[in-house]
Amino acid sequence: MATAELTTHDLIAQHRPTLDQALETIRTRAYWSPHPEHPKAYGENGSLDAAAGKAAFEAVLHTRLDLGQPGTDDWVGDEVSPYGIELGVTYPHPDLETLLPAMRAGQRAWRDAGPELRAVVCLEILKRISDRTHEFTHAVMHTSGQAFMMAFQAGGPHAQDRGLEAVAYAYAEQVRTPGTAEWTKPQGKRDPLSMTKSFTPVPRGTALLIGCNTFPTWNGYPGLFASLATGNAVLVKPHPRAVLPLALTVGIAREVLAAAGFDPNLVALAAERPGEGIAKTLATRPEIRIIDYTGSTAFGDWLEANARQAQVFTEKAGVNTVIVESTANYQGMLANLAFSLSLYSGQMCTTPQNLLIPREGIRTDEGPKTFDEVVADLARAVDGLLGDDARANGLLGAIVNPDVKARLEAAAGLGEVALASREVSNPEFPDAVVRTPVIVKLDGAKPDDEAAYMSECFGPVSFAVGVDSAADAVALLRRTVREKGAMTVGAYTTDQEVEEAIQEVCLEESAQLSFNLTGGVYVNQTAAFSDFHGSGGNPAANAALTDGAFVANRFRVVEVRRDV
Amino acid sequence: MATAELTTHDLIAQHRPTLDQALETIRTRAYWSPHPEHPKAYGENGSLDAAAGKAAFEAVLHTRLDLGQPGTDDWVGDEVSPYGIELGVTYPHPDLETLLPAMRAGQRAWRDAGPELRAVVCLEILKRISDRTHEFTHAVMHTSGQAFMMAFQAGGPHAQDRGLEAVAYAYAEQVRTPGTAEWTKPQGKRDPLSMTKSFTPVPRGTALLIGCNTFPTWNGYPGLFASLATGNAVLVKPHPRAVLPLALTVGIAREVLAAAGFDPNLVALAAERPGEGIAKTLATRPEIRIIDYTGSTAFGDWLEANARQAQVFTEKAGVNTVIVESTANYQGMLANLAFSLSLYSGQMCTTPQNLLIPREGIRTDEGPKTFDEVVADLARAVDGLLGDDARANGLLGAIVNPDVKARLEAAAGLGEVALASREVSNPEFPDAVVRTPVIVKLDGAKPDDEAAYMSECFGPVSFAVGVDSAADAVALLRRTVREKGAMTVGAYTTDQEVEEAIQEVCLEESAQLSFNLTGGVYVNQTAAFSDFHGSGGNPAANAALTDGAFVANRFRVVEVRRDV
Repeated sequence: MATAELTTHDLIAQHRPTLDQALETIRTRAYWSPHPEHPKAYGENGSLDAAAGKAAFEAVLHTRLDLGQPGTDDWVGDEVSPYGIELGVTYPHPDLETLLPAMRAGQRAWRDAGPELRAVVCLEILKRISDRTHEFTHAVMHTSGQAFMMAFQAGGPHAQDRGLEAVAYAYAEQVRTPGTAEWTKPQGKRDPLSMTKSFTPVPRGTALLIGCNTFPTWNGYPGLFASLATGNAVLVKPHPRAVLPLALTVGIAREVLAAAGFDPNLVALAAERPGEGIAKTLATRPEIRIIDYTGSTAFGDWLEANARQAQVFTEKAGVNTVIVESTANYQGMLANLAFSLSLYSGQMCTTPQNLLIPREGIRTDEGPKTFDEVVADLARAVDGLLGDDARANGLLGAIVNPDVKARLEAAAGLGEVALASREVSNPEFPDAVVRTPVIVKLDGAKPDDEAAYMSECFGPVSFAVGVDSAADAVALLRRTVREKGAMTVGAYTTDQEVEEAIQEVCLEESAQLSFNLTGGVYVNQTAAFSDFHGSGGNPAANAALTDGAFVANRFRVVEVRRDV
Repeated sequence: MATAELTTHDLIAQHRPTLDQALETIRTRAYWSPHPEHPKAYGENGSLDAAAGKAAFEAVLHTRLDLGQPGTDDWVGDEVSPYGIELGVTYPHPDLETLLPAMRAGQRAWRDAGPELRAVVCLEILKRISDRTHEFTHAVMHTSGQAFMMAFQAGGPHAQDRGLEAVAYAYAEQVRTPGTAEWTKPQGKRDPLSMTKSFTPVPRGTALLIGCNTFPTWNGYPGLFASLATGNAVLVKPHPRAVLPLALTVGIAREVLAAAGFDPNLVALAAERPGEGIAKTLATRPEIRIIDYTGSTAFGDWLEANARQAQVFTEKAGVNTVIVESTANYQGMLANLAFSLSLYSGQMCTTPQNLLIPREGIRTDEGPKTFDEVVADLARAVDGLLGDDARANGLLGAIVNPDVKARLEAAAGLGEVALASREVSNPEFPDAVVRTPVIVKLDGAKPDDEAAYMSECFGPVSFAVGVDSAADAVALLRRTVREKGAMTVGAYTTDQEVEEAIQEVCLEESAQLSFNLTGGVYVNQTAAFSDFHGSGGNPAANAALTDGAFVANRFRVVEVRRDV
């Protein structure tokens, strides 16, 4: 199947152990990653070190990224980094009547390759992406506005982990049914009935990945690799402000597919002209049978309602809650929450928005604290964390787009400001818009305030919401998850009954819950192979990363049976 | 969890080996069934023998089947057997505002029971159904019109097999993720990050099973048991002409749930008034989060488009094709096809409709046969099979409803009749409408004929369609599957190239294929644990019985994590 350049034998020899370890880890859900988290771990065995990665990124700026795709009728691209620089890269704009048929041409050979070869080809793609992690870091940083370290980790190894996890789930799902079976049914005194049966996982068709601005690789890789590993061709439609990380990904995928003897057009890029809205056109094409989407609730709902010919996997918006009821580690709680609110300026779908705190205050290891004290202490913790501009820049990154900035500025008018946002100057990128988070006090009982805390306010905005009691907090949590959805729920409590009540709400409303985080794990972070990202059971997302349901319907099994 | 009557320990001790064998068999897809296929195998160890089963069925006629359900505002039912007898059974009609909330009450305990206990409770339900197989036989026979032996096998052990298969898939899917995990991430010289994580499969809510007239148990059990085993409550809405088999099923499920200490309202029946159309009302209720449906394409499409709050699994209509290109066993082929066309008067979603035969004739082990000879020989084979009225009655059963009879009568006007349908009298049930199949010759090149063979004509109607060549047959097969869907495809060929071309169409269009069946396995039959029923990849059905995709989205996994 594969040519001399990348033989099946070599691909399996090199990647099967990694696949096996991934398969084992999604069963145990213990910690594991094959992708180093430290920038200094790169630079040997063919991987780019920091300087080489940066140079590779700079070399692509102001060039045409020619992926060699058929049906390219134009070159488009106008990305401007949230840090202020113009990327100046142009990408192929598709003539769909040529590109979509071309993507079908290699599908039969890709299907016939079978689950194992597809998996190791995917792992080779991930390996080459990993080797270029430092290059991807800058591509992610200058499209999402993430700070360097976050772009490196979340855009690099963590995204690659999520891609590998999807490959492992896809492989496991396809091999649940054997390739062949002998079936012999006794018939009493007569001869038994005997049949030979073959079972082939077949792709649904062409998959569409609709990328997002903030996490182009992390949110994009699960769908991309799940679809590709199950035999589908994948058309990648990046967010117009975050094309480069996915364009580089497509380039690597095409290179590996070709080297392994497959048609590179199994993976292609669809960049769009400004305002073209190509996603709607693509999403309803009959060739598109699977869609993965991360972004606004409005467009996610539109896809679910209109792309009826496709399996649609959406991650939309939610309103994330943290209940602060009591704690045995007040300083740990404050530090943990301060970090969660600050990381990437709160521009994560998993960042807490509503902090529900009883008006009468909370019990802590430092004695009782009033509502106002808790909020003031949290504000101080955020201030302390971000007091140094260099550290602030390293944690906050840049505001990704003007809408987020506008929401941040408007938030101060929604209630009493407990912590004002401040501008942080970035000496390296003076045009970057860097802002610390705002914390606004709201009253859970006031209808005017409800309009604020019951809407997603994406960005560095949190609401400290006063509630009557723990029971009131639990009830509001339930209503928020049920009506608005949630990617994450956090809770601080030392009370067994309160803990059980919160847990019960999360079980009943399908929300992922973290209790009493006071160390180096944050509610807004999930680890591949172990943590689920989203539940697929509340309005924030119709799928979880990654479980069986995320992969099982991306292919079908065709049985061929014959009398023996 | 479970009370003294059925303890958890005893349930696991009794049923775990069966579950394990089912889990093993869905991996190997070899032959296995724990449910005896011979009527005489029943009568010991608490199961009803033939006479006792018949007596039990007769005892329920003309009674009110009080299932003890809350929210019963009326008693409804007007089933008349296709064999002519009035069943006279009445069933609870639901007040949904009472019944639906009552079905939620026991959901938490059912969720907390966990996958294994839920599985063995389901197996106890199946065991008690199995014990009453002879009673179900009459219930299925007198609602579907199936002949005794088919009602016994398809309505009894084969349906129970499909239910058990769904339980096995549901269990396997839920235990892919462990109940708990310890996660420790090294941090270089610092202390590692350590977390304890719990993972709980949680139900989506209440599932709705919309039953069909022809196979109330066989088509109903997969969805019912898949939903129940994954923690959901299940509301069963039977076809108004086939209530009794599912009402008995609900009764047994409620009895077992109560005996095991769970709320019996986790399973309930929703019978409807004539013309009420309660399925539409139920399908769009917010409480209903899963729907399983077998029936017309029109209503299946309606459900997919409108029941947006639910996961919708549909088996709709298709147009099944058999390509007759050449054979090394002409008599075996004729006998096999004759049986397939005759079984249950062709009232199976899997019965072949279009027999594509080259106009120039076919090669056989008995020498070349012209198109007309093949059709005439097949007609003779059907005639021979059904020449004896007793055997005909035993194979055909009764026509299930007047629509089928009307279609059968109209079919004779669609083209040249190669085999006329004849009336068969049934001495035991003189009012039964028993008919042999009609075979009509059509021309694949005639637009008028295309209207006939490109529509589903459910019932004992087949079209012998003359085609230009094998390639023409393959092209028509592809178009039929793509546009109309297919539950089954059959093919007779001794030509390797033709075989490959047919197989490629089935792989590309997702259709289940049987080659050269000449013995005791028929294209319209599938065996649980081994054969997939439908593919979920063409318009005939959006799901396959049973695979991972059929169960994976009936529940979600909620993770709760804590710092260690």
